[in-house]
Amino acid sequence: VGATIVAMRIAIALYENLTALDAVGPYEVLGRLPGAEVVFTAARVGPVRTDQGSLALVADATFDDVPEPDVVLVPGWPPNMPIPDVDALVGWLRRVDAHTRWTTSVCTGSLLLGMAGLLTGRRATTHWAAMDMLAAHGAVPVAQRHVIDGKYATAAGVSAGLDMALTLAAALTDVTTAQAIQLGIEYDPEPPYDAGSPRTAPAELVPVVRSVLIDRPV
Amino acid sequence: VGATIVAMRIAIALYENLTALDAVGPYEVLGRLPGAEVVFTAARVGPVRTDQGSLALVADATFDDVPEPDVVLVPGWPPNMPIPDVDALVGWLRRVDAHTRWTTSVCTGSLLLGMAGLLTGRRATTHWAAMDMLAAHGAVPVAQRHVIDGKYATAAGVSAGLDMALTLAAALTDVTTAQAIQLGIEYDPEPPYDAGSPRTAPAELVPVVRSVLIDRPV
Repeated sequence: VGATIVAMRIAIALYENLTALDAVGPYEVLGRLPGAEVVFTAARVGPVRTDQGSLALVADATFDDVPEPDVVLVPGWPPNMPIPDVDALVGWLRRVDAHTRWTTSVCTGSLLLGMAGLLTGRRATTHWAAMDMLAAHGAVPVAQRHVIDGKYATAAGVSAGLDMALTLAAALTDVTTAQAIQLGIEYDPEPPYDAGSPRTAPAELVPVVRSVLIDRPV
Repeated sequence: VGATIVAMRIAIALYENLTALDAVGPYEVLGRLPGAEVVFTAARVGPVRTDQGSLALVADATFDDVPEPDVVLVPGWPPNMPIPDVDALVGWLRRVDAHTRWTTSVCTGSLLLGMAGLLTGRRATTHWAAMDMLAAHGAVPVAQRHVIDGKYATAAGVSAGLDMALTLAAALTDVTTAQAIQLGIEYDPEPPYDAGSPRTAPAELVPVVRSVLIDRPV
């Protein structure tokens, strides 16, 4: 199997209160691309606490250290939590976008791309509970697992980053490489319930979950 | 929706060269259980570098700090990489197992449970490429997405931790709570390829991926 080798720098943005799986799911895929170098980037080097509080991911580089990544990925966060460094983050997203081959997000990360002005008039997606917020940033919300519009790839909520990352892996290299990565992480999902979407979940759960993620804490 | 509230301590073990998604997938599920407290635990407090090298996860407690968790989860690693603190890790797994309600693993984490002597004669699973190694530890390997034998729950490779964690979430609380978590992380998978298992992947990829994960680097 002769995999395509690509030299590319992939920057994954970290910021306080991000959702860990939004970043780590795609990392597990994109980090396995032959020739790819992934760097976790934040306003400051060091631990960045994620939304549930029990886990910190470490940033090895500052935003300024990574001015021209080939691929940028921004994870999401529960919009009812603050992002202390939001201006630094959004400013960096806007600057690096001038150089990227791909600008990507998972979950409500697309709201941050929207704040950077990068999704105006573009088809994009986000967590199902945040679709209205995405529209408020001028994007055209599309209820798909992931959406590609030009060089902008956006994924639906949290776990959707895995699916988007496999699609990106194929676009950056070839289908065989993406399939090898899928086999390596044994991504052959068997959810025990069919409740992962507002289309399939028990209807009474939809407003409850929306409230946990979106509404201001009382 | 009246969710079951459970007070329980969930310890997720970290060690150098672990596979990040093995830990973070289940964390994203179990950390959302009402009343659950997750603690990331390692031989030492501080950053723990994961297998691909670009990401460190932070341990907030030492193994000694967490002597009696209700649930323990040990992620896997590529068995061709070293685990410097393997004795401390395996010793702790053996000790805490005397107190747990659930002792669990993702991917090759089951080999570590095996080294601790906890899977002898038990049905268990692991990454598809490591099934022979699991048998060598006295377990009875079963090629399922996850396997439950008594209080021992083991998941297949990497991404299978998500499916196992949802099953555990229901066992620890109730099905409705597990479904709400599934909806919260929008776990409605749509892999772009059907290559996540050696049953479905292009046959020529199977030995290549096995070699990357299992064989000694040349």
